[in-house]
Amino acid sequence: METPSVVLLLHNAVIVTMDSGSRVFRNGAIVVSDTAISAIGHSPDILRDYSHQATDVVDLRGRILLPGFVNTHVHTSQQLGRGIADDVDLMTWLHERIWPYESNMTEEDSYLSTLLCGIELIRSGVTCFAEAGGQHVSGMARAVELLGIRACLAQSTMDYGEGLPAKWSAHSTEYCIESQKELYRKHHNTADGRIRVWFGLRQIMNASDKLLVETRDIAAELQTGIHMHVAEIPYENQLVMRTREVDHGTVTYLEKIGLLRSNLLAAHSVHVNDKEIGLLSQADVKVSHCPAAAMRMLGFAPIREMLDAGVCVSLGTDGAPSNNRMSIVDEMYLASLINKGREAYITGTTNPTVVPAETVLRMVTVNGAKSVLWDEQIGSLEVGKKADMIVVNPFLWSMVPLHDCISSLVYCMRSENIDSVMCNGRWVMKDQKILSINEAEVILQATKASSDLLMRAGIKLPNRMNYL
Amino acid sequence: METPSVVLLLHNAVIVTMDSGSRVFRNGAIVVSDTAISAIGHSPDILRDYSHQATDVVDLRGRILLPGFVNTHVHTSQQLGRGIADDVDLMTWLHERIWPYESNMTEEDSYLSTLLCGIELIRSGVTCFAEAGGQHVSGMARAVELLGIRACLAQSTMDYGEGLPAKWSAHSTEYCIESQKELYRKHHNTADGRIRVWFGLRQIMNASDKLLVETRDIAAELQTGIHMHVAEIPYENQLVMRTREVDHGTVTYLEKIGLLRSNLLAAHSVHVNDKEIGLLSQADVKVSHCPAAAMRMLGFAPIREMLDAGVCVSLGTDGAPSNNRMSIVDEMYLASLINKGREAYITGTTNPTVVPAETVLRMVTVNGAKSVLWDEQIGSLEVGKKADMIVVNPFLWSMVPLHDCISSLVYCMRSENIDSVMCNGRWVMKDQKILSINEAEVILQATKASSDLLMRAGIKLPNRMNYL
Repeated sequence: METPSVVLLLHNAVIVTMDSGSRVFRNGAIVVSDTAISAIGHSPDILRDYSHQATDVVDLRGRILLPGFVNTHVHTSQQLGRGIADDVDLMTWLHERIWPYESNMTEEDSYLSTLLCGIELIRSGVTCFAEAGGQHVSGMARAVELLGIRACLAQSTMDYGEGLPAKWSAHSTEYCIESQKELYRKHHNTADGRIRVWFGLRQIMNASDKLLVETRDIAAELQTGIHMHVAEIPYENQLVMRTREVDHGTVTYLEKIGLLRSNLLAAHSVHVNDKEIGLLSQADVKVSHCPAAAMRMLGFAPIREMLDAGVCVSLGTDGAPSNNRMSIVDEMYLASLINKGREAYITGTTNPTVVPAETVLRMVTVNGAKSVLWDEQIGSLEVGKKADMIVVNPFLWSMVPLHDCISSLVYCMRSENIDSVMCNGRWVMKDQKILSINEAEVILQATKASSDLLMRAGIKLPNRMNYL
Repeated sequence: METPSVVLLLHNAVIVTMDSGSRVFRNGAIVVSDTAISAIGHSPDILRDYSHQATDVVDLRGRILLPGFVNTHVHTSQQLGRGIADDVDLMTWLHERIWPYESNMTEEDSYLSTLLCGIELIRSGVTCFAEAGGQHVSGMARAVELLGIRACLAQSTMDYGEGLPAKWSAHSTEYCIESQKELYRKHHNTADGRIRVWFGLRQIMNASDKLLVETRDIAAELQTGIHMHVAEIPYENQLVMRTREVDHGTVTYLEKIGLLRSNLLAAHSVHVNDKEIGLLSQADVKVSHCPAAAMRMLGFAPIREMLDAGVCVSLGTDGAPSNNRMSIVDEMYLASLINKGREAYITGTTNPTVVPAETVLRMVTVNGAKSVLWDEQIGSLEVGKKADMIVVNPFLWSMVPLHDCISSLVYCMRSENIDSVMCNGRWVMKDQKILSINEAEVILQATKASSDLLMRAGIKLPNRMNYL
């Protein structure tokens, strides 16, 4: 075995490993060799055994070390469109704002949008994300390579459906499949293995049966994942029942055509019944719960029931025009609150004990890693796994006093508390300075590009107040 | 008229005045003379007319100027207990955690707790808060004087009810009233007029009729407010119906005994029916909506219906063991999301158009000021009002691009965006440095005091993971 060129030793940290034994080292240390974790344990032991070979030894002074978070549903291309569709109904949102926006995007826009979104992801502790599907995967890939984090990229794919912008509706099923195969050939496993290419299905109302089945087969052949919006609104289920002859909705239909598999990442999954929850569980389908977007646009997903049924639930932020904060840290807070509150509608009172902090923390770490089919390498801090991790400072105003470390990570932690972020053994943010890109420059360029895009797309927003 | 000693001129700002004309100056300026606003308008006009008399002229370089936020329900004494009662049922929360905690607090603990809470309030843009009621008002007052912000303080008052800790249940109605009158004499209108003393009623289940009626009368006589937890849980309403002979719950009973008045600040008000919403509106009772605490512990308040009925609704964070973030900025985000989501249970789908951003912004400014009976002096940026305001930097990663300024203030803004906070004409935070107190010192002392308090109270928390 070759001697790694860089050996980093971090010690004097509370290490929340998120491993299968739920181990937490009160005074822990970790050794990173090149891209991976080579040792983890009590500080005195690790210092004794590894100090001599470390090229860098860092005292974390009691800070908390966690696996990097996984955001399993984010539209990075929509970051330039933050604020373009607030407080409007779903049809206005789609037809007058999002479709004009997305269909007027260039690859350069998508590149800048992903960079801008990446800043927010990194600052909220995300080291891996699943792209929900955009128009220009090559632009995203270029951005992710620079950002230094991990991603499963997907193209927004539609071959069917009414009311789509002209340049989209022309796409044939063949084009949809072939263009994605080409993206797979070009980008899969690039950027030191940080980028993977998945197949995208925007949603069932925009997919022919041929597209669904071919996507199923090609993803299986290439051993990659499928990212799809599933059971978002009641109308979707009603349409599926009417046109595709099943007794409930999208999930029931996907089961019928064999698309419910362990490589399906089903975003939202709000409108599913008990039988469908059982189907998701049996097939090991992964569900991305997006609490903020659900509150705003979709409704309350039966998350407690899914967890009880053994479904692997992770968390996503969705896109900026649906949320508008792209912070997985805030989604943790929301996931806990909303699912406690939802019980009021089932039992008459909230239940503060459901979806506890440790469950939420699993959603953004181990469950996130499973959802993006990457759990052999990420999701927990263990020897042999990739060094994707974050340093949390719990000594600020927002987290003191720290009586319950695990619950405070979920309910109190804010982006302010995230000091440093490492992905694949490299610091992408250190002491709150992003190292991988020039943040100020990205903000300037993205701001300019977003104004131009809105102008080009003809999107105008009404004034909410009396501007003078 | 005397010439004021300090005249501050801030220019080149987007000024969201929150005045009755909903005016926003795209390039605005404001003049502060001593404690109050003496001019507001377009930058060129103000610079021309006031530069000669200004002792300090500050270019805000396009930042946003807003009225300071009002947090209308916060237990500052509970800040040391953050994290002591997460994910537990209501009875455990109350009997095993909160009551032992509160009943073992010293005045010094309350002082430190209020200082620590104050840091979080200031960092989230709060210049005025309504204390929900704690044990040691004198400790709070000492802290508020130092913090430099504005507060309506109240004692937690109970003369009745089962299961209370021994040292509390001994309090007679007379003691409850007299001790509050004494606090009023001692602290009302102190700290340059920044501190006001209100009367507290913990909740109806802990208040005799005598206490309710005497509180009503003495508050009217002293022309101050009453802060009370109202209609929090279904059991409360049921108990009131059974023991106090009314056909619904607390609100109905308070109407019967004449306590529904414009000086009543009713916190939570979750379990109220349409008739009671009408009563609240007619009597001009103020409602403090606490979205996070409601989700966790209480249920969904009918906020949209209250707004439709003309009830003055403001926002509160509640206390740290109920939330755990004491950030009114996050409550704005939550208030919008939760009330859109709640529609799913009424109409079958969410309604993204209800409780829009401008309504939420009113809740934390003008409505907040009305709720604390201070709207003649604060809540909007207008000539003659006190200079309570905040400077928001919208050019950071968390708010760009800024397509819709008002909605981005509600849905994107984070505490990171709040640069500076002024209260009563003085900067309490400038460029994210708190000027009024030594933040690091407070954090150290509060951390120590909170450990000692938990030890004294015998509160032990189970481990959520496997600590090594």
